[in-house]
Amino acid sequence: MPHITLPDGVPGIRSLVLFRPDTGKPLYELAQVLLRDTPPGGTLQPAERELIAAYVSHENACEFCGSSHAAAARFLFGQDAALVNAVLTDYTTAPISDKLRALLPIADATRANARTVTHDLVQTACAAGATDADIHDTVLTAATFSMFNRYVDGLATIIPDDPTAYEAMGERMGTLGYQLPKTPEASVLDGSDMVPS
Amino acid sequence: MPHITLPDGVPGIRSLVLFRPDTGKPLYELAQVLLRDTPPGGTLQPAERELIAAYVSHENACEFCGSSHAAAARFLFGQDAALVNAVLTDYTTAPISDKLRALLPIADATRANARTVTHDLVQTACAAGATDADIHDTVLTAATFSMFNRYVDGLATIIPDDPTAYEAMGERMGTLGYQLPKTPEASVLDGSDMVPS
Repeated sequence: MPHITLPDGVPGIRSLVLFRPDTGKPLYELAQVLLRDTPPGGTLQPAERELIAAYVSHENACEFCGSSHAAAARFLFGQDAALVNAVLTDYTTAPISDKLRALLPIADATRANARTVTHDLVQTACAAGATDADIHDTVLTAATFSMFNRYVDGLATIIPDDPTAYEAMGERMGTLGYQLPKTPEASVLDGSDMVPS
Repeated sequence: MPHITLPDGVPGIRSLVLFRPDTGKPLYELAQVLLRDTPPGGTLQPAERELIAAYVSHENACEFCGSSHAAAARFLFGQDAALVNAVLTDYTTAPISDKLRALLPIADATRANARTVTHDLVQTACAAGATDADIHDTVLTAATFSMFNRYVDGLATIIPDDPTAYEAMGERMGTLGYQLPKTPEASVLDGSDMVPS
């Protein structure tokens, strides 16, 4: 049960941005830009960005964000559940690029204690093909999900009872991206308020 | 030395939002709304919001954010350095309201492990006068600074050599708020680019 009175039946972050839309607006804008846009000099694709978000949320033991972003990553990797599961289980042996394998420990260090991101970790990632923009985006993604994870868990937002609910969320996040929900009624996981604005 | 190539001489978060302005924009908008605006039902004032931000950053051992937001809190509390120092040293004995004293452990729990924010902590804060909006804003502020702290430390941004530099920052944050810097030259702590837009 949430610690404050939130819209009935609305899970996770969506209940919170309906509670305070003026902070929800920049939060959704941040998610949209960071997880979907590739900046000048950057090489990370949306699927890889969602994978980093899912990995960080999983390591932070945030069930809502971990499950929803894993579903988005599966959707964007062509429903490759084995790849996403392998990363969440042990990225060191997962079938991913050397670049991504070198960026994930930077994400993990940022999440755990950002002062443990070392020059060696960064150099290893650059040697594997990561650019300054990729290093930046990896650190900011880990920092951003260290925020979202705390926001949804700190207020004890509800999480879906049915694990398959995340598949619909993942498809919505993979196709429509992050758009601020407009009404509680339209936010109960049916996605009907998620028309891109 | 920063892990990526950032504008010369620009400290902390400002160097990062100049590196990637499209993510910087929602980050600054979030700081501005969350630390300056009081939502319907809310009672927290900007000085109290900056104090929560400074406390979380201090507990996260982030020197740049801790020092700059402590300076902003001092400025907004009428240069009451003793009050701000007392909170950072031991909020349980600091000369603050019972409400704020009950909100700070919620901020600390969110920062450390958001699943340790208990119903009892929330009930205690509500009994001391905190509203749902105040609980929300306390959790989101702790989550947000758990992000900013990781962003500036994870990329090893530079911090001012001169501790008095933070006083100028605090005054700027207290008067002009959070506006995205436009150029590196104007961001070297002189505030000349901080005209409200």
